[in-house]
Amino acid sequence: MALGLLFSTQTRLGQQLAFLAELDKLKEVLRRSLVTGSRRHENSAEHSWHLAMMALVLLEQVRGPEVDLLRALKMLLVHDIVEIDAGDTFCYDVAANVSKADREVAAAERIFALLPTEQADELRGLWEEFETGATPEAKWAQGLDRLQPILQNLRTDGASWRAHGVTKAQVLARNEKIGETMPEIWAALREQLDLAEKQGYFGYVLGE
Amino acid sequence: MALGLLFSTQTRLGQQLAFLAELDKLKEVLRRSLVTGSRRHENSAEHSWHLAMMALVLLEQVRGPEVDLLRALKMLLVHDIVEIDAGDTFCYDVAANVSKADREVAAAERIFALLPTEQADELRGLWEEFETGATPEAKWAQGLDRLQPILQNLRTDGASWRAHGVTKAQVLARNEKIGETMPEIWAALREQLDLAEKQGYFGYVLGE
Repeated sequence: MALGLLFSTQTRLGQQLAFLAELDKLKEVLRRSLVTGSRRHENSAEHSWHLAMMALVLLEQVRGPEVDLLRALKMLLVHDIVEIDAGDTFCYDVAANVSKADREVAAAERIFALLPTEQADELRGLWEEFETGATPEAKWAQGLDRLQPILQNLRTDGASWRAHGVTKAQVLARNEKIGETMPEIWAALREQLDLAEKQGYFGYVLGE
Repeated sequence: MALGLLFSTQTRLGQQLAFLAELDKLKEVLRRSLVTGSRRHENSAEHSWHLAMMALVLLEQVRGPEVDLLRALKMLLVHDIVEIDAGDTFCYDVAANVSKADREVAAAERIFALLPTEQADELRGLWEEFETGATPEAKWAQGLDRLQPILQNLRTDGASWRAHGVTKAQVLARNEKIGETMPEIWAALREQLDLAEKQGYFGYVLGE
């Protein structure tokens, strides 16, 4: 295919367009969570959009240190890009999580390097900040990233929890972090999780 | 289903979560453009994420008045939400575009009103600003929204142009606006479009 030649990767624009073309692949990385209507698996690109919208709407729910919305948005937009190579690692899959960091670092090396150097450094820095979770923005972004699949599960009768035998105790332990930046939301969620347990949304369901 | 009762829509949080739940539907609104790998139709949620990433990476390509990145990002994130009710209107479909504005205004009335009033006003304002295209951020956001499907077409052998008999003249006429804020990109694209024409990416292809 001759196309693409004019967007030479010797130029900054060509490098930027090559990176943006590569990002298209995130639309094909499937997560365990389902989309609520058709109940197909959600992909990581649309998930990232949903998180960015959650940030716009839930900013006022943040308690503690003030957060910079633009910085948090950038982090949420880039946080899953490494999955293009590393795949989505289910948070309750202990074995897969052992190799997750190595796979994702290798992915970051390759993918962000498509960009001009200082842009690669900026986006990779945002991804590392998200992963480290030390800044107020990163803590909040991590909280949103945990909140969203819980909401998807609550709206699909616990579909991915039931499919993978996830217990309420696991959900509580993994997602406590939501409460660090959004305590009222975490309190409301805990009540929902109690209700979800009564409705049989946790653990394997025989015959499914 | 008893769930959701605790997120009473009498509270701000409940209204915010109801809006965010509604947004899930944008993941099921299909566009004419294809995803480059599997060549399935792209949905409007993942498209919106792709546009937000384009904004992060292509900010330096903007010429003319300075743009506020956060404002442009917000606009790109919300610009297609009305499609949840109004559907995606193919830009080259003249008949559908006659009723587009009415359908989208009705959609905006319903969907943004799920939020607390001042948030509804803010997001609706961003959507209207995008549609009007008068501010530097809106002009740029519109340019990105036009650039992205062209890039998807160039990477899928003109799939949606060929499927709908779109000509190069139509693409040039509709997308000139890209050049208002990103002239170097528009110049490079025009060269690609010439090449695309030679490769038969435009107009109906018999037997397809």
